[in-house]
Amino acid sequence: MEKQIILTGDRPTGQLHMGHYVGSLENRVKLQDNHQQFIMIADMQALTDNADNPEKVRSNVVEVALDYLAVGLDPTKTTMFIQSAITELSELTMYYLNLVTVARLQRNPTVKNEMQQKGFGADVPAGFLMYPVSQAADITAFKAKIVPVGEDQLPVIEQTNEIVRKFNSIYGEVLVEAEGLLSTTTRLAGLDGKAKMSKSLDNAIYLADDADTLKKKVMSMFTDPDHLRVEDPGKVEGNMVFAYLDVFGQDKEHIAELKAHYQRGGLGDVKVKRYLLEILEAKFAPIREKRAELAKDKAAIMAMLKEGSLKAKEVAATTLSEVRRAIGVQYF
Amino acid sequence: MEKQIILTGDRPTGQLHMGHYVGSLENRVKLQDNHQQFIMIADMQALTDNADNPEKVRSNVVEVALDYLAVGLDPTKTTMFIQSAITELSELTMYYLNLVTVARLQRNPTVKNEMQQKGFGADVPAGFLMYPVSQAADITAFKAKIVPVGEDQLPVIEQTNEIVRKFNSIYGEVLVEAEGLLSTTTRLAGLDGKAKMSKSLDNAIYLADDADTLKKKVMSMFTDPDHLRVEDPGKVEGNMVFAYLDVFGQDKEHIAELKAHYQRGGLGDVKVKRYLLEILEAKFAPIREKRAELAKDKAAIMAMLKEGSLKAKEVAATTLSEVRRAIGVQYF
Repeated sequence: MEKQIILTGDRPTGQLHMGHYVGSLENRVKLQDNHQQFIMIADMQALTDNADNPEKVRSNVVEVALDYLAVGLDPTKTTMFIQSAITELSELTMYYLNLVTVARLQRNPTVKNEMQQKGFGADVPAGFLMYPVSQAADITAFKAKIVPVGEDQLPVIEQTNEIVRKFNSIYGEVLVEAEGLLSTTTRLAGLDGKAKMSKSLDNAIYLADDADTLKKKVMSMFTDPDHLRVEDPGKVEGNMVFAYLDVFGQDKEHIAELKAHYQRGGLGDVKVKRYLLEILEAKFAPIREKRAELAKDKAAIMAMLKEGSLKAKEVAATTLSEVRRAIGVQYF
Repeated sequence: MEKQIILTGDRPTGQLHMGHYVGSLENRVKLQDNHQQFIMIADMQALTDNADNPEKVRSNVVEVALDYLAVGLDPTKTTMFIQSAITELSELTMYYLNLVTVARLQRNPTVKNEMQQKGFGADVPAGFLMYPVSQAADITAFKAKIVPVGEDQLPVIEQTNEIVRKFNSIYGEVLVEAEGLLSTTTRLAGLDGKAKMSKSLDNAIYLADDADTLKKKVMSMFTDPDHLRVEDPGKVEGNMVFAYLDVFGQDKEHIAELKAHYQRGGLGDVKVKRYLLEILEAKFAPIREKRAELAKDKAAIMAMLKEGSLKAKEVAATTLSEVRRAIGVQYF
């Protein structure tokens, strides 16, 4: 049986952190064994709201690729590539833009939300408003059937499938509808207790963080602000140390005991933090070390991306040629 | 001295007519001798409001190219190419879309007008709203300094230059500002007296029209509806026969006499129409005959377009590569 095709990726606007690990990277490593997985470093999409800071985008391409390899994504199983290296995606976007109204784009809940968060009014860059169309190009270029997404990204799949259906109904059956694969893990909260770990909130533990940084970050985690003395009873809900233990700890029984002890009093933050740190060290030290080793030869990373991009380009070019033929603009 | 670069073109949504001849084609034939002229058959732009009728666009590509060659555009002097054959233009468009706000596009007077004419509300296709950005890509890809336009198209140049300035200020001096070259001829009105000769108004004389069709069209031209008998005085203003004589006639003295005669009465429509027909025949019969001859070998026309497209692609690829380097997304 042919392997199902997956497309996924990240905007290169910063190094990847534990939130990415839990939310997607870990899963991608599993998926690569029995799927044909394409992972895109979406530099062009990152530029839609970072046009005036291209250096941020450019410099993070290799960082993101290092994170990929460090967690165990394997270039022999997963095609990792750079979006801007695939010109074909731009041309597909242009054809799809004719099949979507401006009103429809303005109604897209994901974009609406992000526009609010970023404080764009009517001054939203045109490229940003239409990035869902560009995503439709990314997904359909690889004929991806599966797109791993967070719940907030489901409208992107819907938008893509609308375009697919409209395209196929006008020009003939060429494109394939995609399905969102919802992440089953809960979202990893930030060190400060905010709902989301993110670079912009400065509450993240990066995969690249060294042992000292990791220790400092764990030791400064938000716990229970009313838990002033060891003997006081403490709260487990909203306490990041326990939240992280729930995500990363294997010994559920011991964790349950710790929680009970913490709640009745007599267990200090430092002790629980040390336990968490031990667990995180065991899990992430190998990733961090592999990453540091790989980072010594960035040229090799770029060579891997180049190879992946050439492979991806071939697939996208085949789809583009089918698309052109269907529209009737394949003249030569 | 290096020749100045011109970019111009047409949407392939129909054959070209005398309005095109007077408004642009005639001028392009002159310009090709001392300029580096690129003429684009804008099939992708035509699709922005003809997405559901691609056959109209596709089939007219060769028709427009036939018109070009028939009027005397010379592939050894003018590079004629097909827009969709230059993928690079799409990628440039994507980068430029990040430098323009949606509000700015919605304020573009040309687009606003056209949206009204076409009856688009918020349901305007996204591709149509942003076609000025795609035009900026077309113009800048060739580093065109001169873009022949009608007055109603001046906002396109303005939009392009805004993008050029924004791009250069963020990423460094790469792109070149363009200047609109306003057509000096007055616009040719339609056979029916409407302000504009156009395919959609069905009031055009095509360059491909045979002698019979030309005759029928001239004989049915709108003159003075109150000029019922030969001996009646007639009106010259708004009388298409005289309007066309003003555009195409060389013997200005004789035309002035005819006008005076017509105004005082005693000159019939048929007689003036025959005179106009003679003049149009003399001018357009050679074009029509050359066109018919060329149309016998459409494969040769497509081969000419292929060659032109390859040449254009090389120029656009050079610019794209400079653009990528400037943004910092030229990784390999």
